[in-house]
Amino acid sequence: MKAYLDGRMIDADAAGVAVTDRGLTLGDGLYETIAVRSGAARRVDAHLARLRAGAEATGIPLGAADGDLVRAFADVITANGIDEGVLRLTLTRGPAPRGLRPPETVRPTLIVAGSAQALASGREARAVVALVTRRNDHSPLSRIKSTSALDNVLAAAEARERGADDAILLNTAGNLAEAASANLFLVIDGAVATPPVTEGALPGVMRADVIANIDVTERALSPAEIAQASEAFLTNSLGIRPLVEIDGVPVGGGRPGPVTQGLQAIA
Amino acid sequence: MKAYLDGRMIDADAAGVAVTDRGLTLGDGLYETIAVRSGAARRVDAHLARLRAGAEATGIPLGAADGDLVRAFADVITANGIDEGVLRLTLTRGPAPRGLRPPETVRPTLIVAGSAQALASGREARAVVALVTRRNDHSPLSRIKSTSALDNVLAAAEARERGADDAILLNTAGNLAEAASANLFLVIDGAVATPPVTEGALPGVMRADVIANIDVTERALSPAEIAQASEAFLTNSLGIRPLVEIDGVPVGGGRPGPVTQGLQAIA
Repeated sequence: MKAYLDGRMIDADAAGVAVTDRGLTLGDGLYETIAVRSGAARRVDAHLARLRAGAEATGIPLGAADGDLVRAFADVITANGIDEGVLRLTLTRGPAPRGLRPPETVRPTLIVAGSAQALASGREARAVVALVTRRNDHSPLSRIKSTSALDNVLAAAEARERGADDAILLNTAGNLAEAASANLFLVIDGAVATPPVTEGALPGVMRADVIANIDVTERALSPAEIAQASEAFLTNSLGIRPLVEIDGVPVGGGRPGPVTQGLQAIA
Repeated sequence: MKAYLDGRMIDADAAGVAVTDRGLTLGDGLYETIAVRSGAARRVDAHLARLRAGAEATGIPLGAADGDLVRAFADVITANGIDEGVLRLTLTRGPAPRGLRPPETVRPTLIVAGSAQALASGREARAVVALVTRRNDHSPLSRIKSTSALDNVLAAAEARERGADDAILLNTAGNLAEAASANLFLVIDGAVATPPVTEGALPGVMRADVIANIDVTERALSPAEIAQASEAFLTNSLGIRPLVEIDGVPVGGGRPGPVTQGLQAIA
């Protein structure tokens, strides 16, 4: 597998990054996961806008123009022969001496990796409500796609241990926030609802597209409302998946619902 | 500067780690910051015990015996000619394909870097109460020294912007948790108090030594109690520092207090 690193293409398995990189030592970085279909990166403008918002909020300089990034995406797609698959962009604050404080002069590290894989949009998913951790809605990082993602890793590991595809994270108030790797939508009494960003939901690129395409109410959702849902689904950049079971209990009839099926046109 | 990486010594500035390392992509790692005095690593047993507890909680295999780690510490101290300074151990879940889920077979990455520096124990510190973020006491990561540390980075950056040395983080209930790079102690009515781990305080190695040496009450502390403190101090592996000012207001007389001064014997 080939990857882009700071302007050049390298072997992704080869040593590329210094052990002093703050992305490695402090999770001091941002990332984007971008779908590739028919050999082209999807929703590039939305991903780059979110990346720039995260860079602004964290003070990590991007140091690359949009055109450079678009060319890097194309180069990684070509080098790895990707027709359908995923790009992963990682931006870190780069190498620096030890310590939490960002250095005065930042030399950011920019990585784009990519691989071919079948995208799972439309495929049924089962979830559990995570017990291991909760999402910190009091942190700006709940609204930024940062590489300090170990809470999400722990939730994903819990999902696997419990035989599920993903884990729904509660926020610190005990409301539904999102899943470890996706945003969460419920259909209750015919109305589609999703937690607002202020409740700890990441401002997902596919989430925004769903909200732009159908009527969605952004509101706080309690775990008890899961039992009232006739339908549920998960969205991320890679697709929209019907959520047919939560904590072992079927959602609605335990089958993909009409809202989720209708949305496959935009996934 | 030389660093230890997976059994060999390398130039710390050279490329050493793959761009697919989960430490880099997901903050999926642990770390320890260890003081060096008179050319010897300090409190090694306590650091290794905390590292192993974090490895257990996150499922990251350490893959090295204590003796290997102790030898790596000595090699890094020697290679960098450190008399007084700091070692930084970083353990990550290693390279893996994209995605939150830990791979079935983990090849962890183990790094020990080190540098000479004067340790700051005893030197006066000024702090602010962080506005940018709060510590997630609902996450097991509040009790683990993980590399998903961007909340602490943001708080440290805020401290610098506001002219302070460190930033005190509130927990999600609004109580005092700890500082970005240290544990917090207050002396109120002659009694020493510090937030318990359940309030979001990292179980600091120096914090444990302080509790073992003097009477300390572990209890929830509200920000309002700062005004009642006759003395405050910060502890981390690198020392014990008098906290003489918080949010621009002097603590006690704005000078190091007797408890802090007495503790320098163990720092």
